[in-house]
Amino acid sequence: MTLLPRDRGKPPGASSRRLANALAQAGRAFYARGWALGTSGNFSAVLRRQPLRLLITPSGLDKATLNAQHFLEIDGDCNVLRGSRKSSAEALLHLAVARVRGAGAILHTHSVWSTLLSDLHAAEGGLGISGYEMLKGLEGVKTHEHREWLPIVENSQDIPALAASVETVLRSHADSHGFLLRAHGLYTWGEDVAQARRHVEILEFLLEVQGRRESGEVGRGRA
Amino acid sequence: MTLLPRDRGKPPGASSRRLANALAQAGRAFYARGWALGTSGNFSAVLRRQPLRLLITPSGLDKATLNAQHFLEIDGDCNVLRGSRKSSAEALLHLAVARVRGAGAILHTHSVWSTLLSDLHAAEGGLGISGYEMLKGLEGVKTHEHREWLPIVENSQDIPALAASVETVLRSHADSHGFLLRAHGLYTWGEDVAQARRHVEILEFLLEVQGRRESGEVGRGRA
Amino acid sequence: MTLLPRDRGKPPGASSRRLANALAQAGRAFYARGWALGTSGNFSAVLRRQPLRLLITPSGLDKATLNAQHFLEIDGDCNVLRGSRKSSAEALLHLAVARVRGAGAILHTHSVWSTLLSDLHAAEGGLGISGYEMLKGLEGVKTHEHREWLPIVENSQDIPALAASVETVLRSHADSHGFLLRAHGLYTWGEDVAQARRHVEILEFLLEVQGRRESGEVGRGRA
Amino acid sequence: MTLLPRDRGKPPGASSRRLANALAQAGRAFYARGWALGTSGNFSAVLRRQPLRLLITPSGLDKATLNAQHFLEIDGDCNVLRGSRKSSAEALLHLAVARVRGAGAILHTHSVWSTLLSDLHAAEGGLGISGYEMLKGLEGVKTHEHREWLPIVENSQDIPALAASVETVLRSHADSHGFLLRAHGLYTWGEDVAQARRHVEILEFLLEVQGRRESGEVGRGRA
Repeated sequence: MTLLPRDRGKPPGASSRRLANALAQAGRAFYARGWALGTSGNFSAVLRRQPLRLLITPSGLDKATLNAQHFLEIDGDCNVLRGSRKSSAEALLHLAVARVRGAGAILHTHSVWSTLLSDLHAAEGGLGISGYEMLKGLEGVKTHEHREWLPIVENSQDIPALAASVETVLRSHADSHGFLLRAHGLYTWGEDVAQARRHVEILEFLLEVQGRRESGEVGRGRA
Repeated sequence: MTLLPRDRGKPPGASSRRLANALAQAGRAFYARGWALGTSGNFSAVLRRQPLRLLITPSGLDKATLNAQHFLEIDGDCNVLRGSRKSSAEALLHLAVARVRGAGAILHTHSVWSTLLSDLHAAEGGLGISGYEMLKGLEGVKTHEHREWLPIVENSQDIPALAASVETVLRSHADSHGFLLRAHGLYTWGEDVAQARRHVEILEFLLEVQGRRESGEVGRGRA
Repeated sequence: MTLLPRDRGKPPGASSRRLANALAQAGRAFYARGWALGTSGNFSAVLRRQPLRLLITPSGLDKATLNAQHFLEIDGDCNVLRGSRKSSAEALLHLAVARVRGAGAILHTHSVWSTLLSDLHAAEGGLGISGYEMLKGLEGVKTHEHREWLPIVENSQDIPALAASVETVLRSHADSHGFLLRAHGLYTWGEDVAQARRHVEILEFLLEVQGRRESGEVGRGRA
Repeated sequence: MTLLPRDRGKPPGASSRRLANALAQAGRAFYARGWALGTSGNFSAVLRRQPLRLLITPSGLDKATLNAQHFLEIDGDCNVLRGSRKSSAEALLHLAVARVRGAGAILHTHSVWSTLLSDLHAAEGGLGISGYEMLKGLEGVKTHEHREWLPIVENSQDIPALAASVETVLRSHADSHGFLLRAHGLYTWGEDVAQARRHVEILEFLLEVQGRRESGEVGRGRA
């Protein structure tokens, strides 16, 4: 049984519209901060678990004016069930996060600092961030002494292979709140759109702190 | 006698609404500048001195859409007298500043530069800033030759202990217009919300100047 | 035959207004990001190919409030066919891009990073950028392994000579999606305004990544 | 004869309101870019030459919500002819620029980069900027080969003495489009508010370019 033929023309329900509006608002805010320029970035939320249904931004869309009508509904095999645009190839990564982490919303941003740091720390396989109060905003973290490890996955245009690498990394770093694709950007997620958006803001903030710290050696002039 | 049972359902007065609106406006502006991302930051104003009553942001709230209705009223023991949300643990620090400094409004921001500098200068116990005209915007400062000392308090998740450290620091640095929590952020205050907001803008500006100066060694290329 | 006498007073058609609105919206957004301050930057779109007609921003206009009414219509010799303002001298460069590349829209921005990098890399004749996922947003690029070469043209106030240099560079670097004028800024283009705007956002993003990478040696502090 | 008694309660004319609106709009825009935080910055325009009358921001005003009603009218001795607030001490510097340069509008901003560079280059007595296309936006400059010299005046709280130093500098550097007060900020001006605002945007842009160039040694990593 497949919902494809029946759903295609059906209008989305109220809960789907609410999710799409929350995702669109987050996306426009990220664009304004320079974290989703040039049609980069994609944003999704889980509509249903069994079978898996995702609301997701289409491929190649400008995020400046992102709105609820732009979103697609896809199934667990990346088939578009509703919406007239093409799904992004990276939808496979969203599906992987939804499955392995049970996330309700998955957000992917391309910032200057995540691009730089994910490239410069690729050889170490990840980036560790610790000691900052801001870490406490990550779900389940109770102290600034927490060490967040953001694994770095080598970038690839073979998206099924990339999705498999991401699944492996998600399973071997079960405590991580996000991961980086090398010279590409950040993925993070949450139980709902609000939590995922909070995680984007926190991780992008910490990446900027880390990037400025490494690049500038702030403080070397003292003492 | 306690106002708890009687106040709980009573609507806030006009002066309380005015204060809440001013705090909400400041909070949204700080969020827009990246100084209160990821639900970080909290903002308060004194409603009454005897007994002490504070209007304060609740715990874990997104500051993007902060409005007057979100604010709680708490007493001097952190009991919530009005409002349905949970008080932030850091409300104890706001109460300490209100008591020791007689402040009318207390604002706490988490910027990239305050996070970095409060960590890198922790060993010195504080950060001295002097020579800048912008210092004159701090209440009572009459010349750019003023040296502002921002004490740095070691961060801790034991908030009552942290509040005690903050009280000690406030008393031993009676001239300081703010203090830093290590790798955490800035606290400053004022007689009213406008003055406290001015102090946030001035100190965040000076922290950025200081951070860029230390990190970049601006000027080393000349002559 | 020339359209000059007949067109001069005629109101612009719907398609021209649509193009002008899209260009104005892009220009205001660039101004907001600091890429077109102080009346810098100019923006154009092709109205007609045979004979060539360009819609273009006039000389010396503040981009903060740029709107559709500000745009001029010019012919292939820089004569103003519609609009009361003066054409920018750099209109010759827009005409060169429209002719050599067959672009539908040409956008020129002055950012801090393009100004810096175009000066510091001038001796090499250009700037190579590779390895970043963001490159895939450039039309026709299929992989982050792409190497984008942004040729740097020596700046000059002899605009006809500059236009000739630009034509030579456009022909000798047929794959480039943009070029830099030394210590001046970026030119890029696209089939339509949306594609050209995407290219501005992508190239400005990559120039910031490159500039921060070179200036800060981000990552030198690790390991 | 003095206009003081007659003018005091008279409503401002249409031309005064237009000027005040243009200044207020510029001031809010500078505040948004972080160039007039914490009540810093002041903005003026000449209402009349003989005798000299200036429209100017009052002392200590928050620029976030600056509007036309906030402006004072002062005479050549800093007496307030219209408006209920106190004039800024720095009004003397505005009067000096209006007199010596014949400026129609004078704008003073406090940015991070002007604060830093005016301090680090104070020993040289000024900062030279050359080679950038953006320089052509300065009134009368025809080529990027122009060298703009921004004299740096030692900061002082003795404002009459500071105004005298500024007058001397304005006369000895008759070609300069602005000057810096050490560790304080930028003054620039123009024939009207639009030209003065263009000069602020251009000089602040160039100060950022210069500051990043010096601090980062951008490009040292190449070849």
